[in-house]
Amino acid sequence: MRIGELSERTGVPAATIKYYLREHLLQAGEHGEGNTVEYGPAHVHRLTLIRALSETAGLSVAQIGEVLTVLGRHPESAFQALGATLAATHRDPKFSLASEGTTEAAERTVDQLLHEYGWAEVAPPNYRDALVIALSAFYRLGNPDPQEVLGHYADAAAALASADMEAIAEATRVDGVNVEQAVVATVLGETVFAALRRIAHVAASAKTQAGQGP
Amino acid sequence: MRIGELSERTGVPAATIKYYLREHLLQAGEHGEGNTVEYGPAHVHRLTLIRALSETAGLSVAQIGEVLTVLGRHPESAFQALGATLAATHRDPKFSLASEGTTEAAERTVDQLLHEYGWAEVAPPNYRDALVIALSAFYRLGNPDPQEVLGHYADAAAALASADMEAIAEATRVDGVNVEQAVVATVLGETVFAALRRIAHVAASAKTQAGQGP
Repeated sequence: MRIGELSERTGVPAATIKYYLREHLLQAGEHGEGNTVEYGPAHVHRLTLIRALSETAGLSVAQIGEVLTVLGRHPESAFQALGATLAATHRDPKFSLASEGTTEAAERTVDQLLHEYGWAEVAPPNYRDALVIALSAFYRLGNPDPQEVLGHYADAAAALASADMEAIAEATRVDGVNVEQAVVATVLGETVFAALRRIAHVAASAKTQAGQGP
Repeated sequence: MRIGELSERTGVPAATIKYYLREHLLQAGEHGEGNTVEYGPAHVHRLTLIRALSETAGLSVAQIGEVLTVLGRHPESAFQALGATLAATHRDPKFSLASEGTTEAAERTVDQLLHEYGWAEVAPPNYRDALVIALSAFYRLGNPDPQEVLGHYADAAAALASADMEAIAEATRVDGVNVEQAVVATVLGETVFAALRRIAHVAASAKTQAGQGP
């Protein structure tokens, strides 16, 4: 198919497709008759993947490029690809910390939590820092120690991670290693979970307002 | 203090402070001696709040404005403020769905899930749509039905929401209604949970690679 049909089928404007081609996110088409360029099902799939990562999961073009590089290396294990993807798609925290005392308290709380869950040695430094920065902001606004809530959060994170690993392992038993599926599920999973969490909050807060207690 | 000291104390550049003043995110200072303008602790607090919402939680200036409007209305209940904040800070999904068949399957799965958890009636339509869009993208990439994983996600979301409601109710018993705290905790909580989830994934994936099973 020509670029016009590719655009129609995927809902991606032709100008955007050309941009993805220039940025090497989308593989080039094949030269057809005359001066035409032909695209196929692989291009439709790749465009769907790019749009899911960009618009659904909110990744930048640079981050999508890194995810596609990970997938292009054909890693043997989905778990290995997952580690590389998680590193590539992290949103850097930029919060500047003026009050050092508060940061130390946040660092202590975060490091203790990571230690308790056996995550201290494997936690990538940028995720640990994201936690410290968020917690410092929380303290600096004069809020009390949310240690108990943090524990609930960590429990939920551990439960989700093992559910995801189970699903990847099961899919691997059935269909062989499907690295793209594992990566897409994990990245989109973040968007899905954020929506579910907000729905659960609205439901819980409506229930609490109705006097049924939290 | 003058704007220079306000900038030093909060780590926010003077030009950015002036921008927040123009956008009415930051309240104006008081006119001091001569032609000077004076700022106080309330400005330091407000700037810390704005930066936490912007850089840590990733909200846009427009979304921050809406959160501050909710807080400025002095709602009687933290739960009521929470509902308004959740509505104001939603990131709209923009994924365009070319394949209608897939969307219907995703809609069925999402609606069934919301129904099962008793969320169908209270779920704001934009969050429900975000789920449908993410799930449609997942299906369109040829992935199998993630219904079991979705159930685990919904369980975790429900557990987190009730932990948050408990914490808000407890803080209210101790310190009276603290709407800002409830709102900040919920908004920053999303960032905190995303970091924890990624750490848990790295840990679980390292454990699985080491052959200890998922």
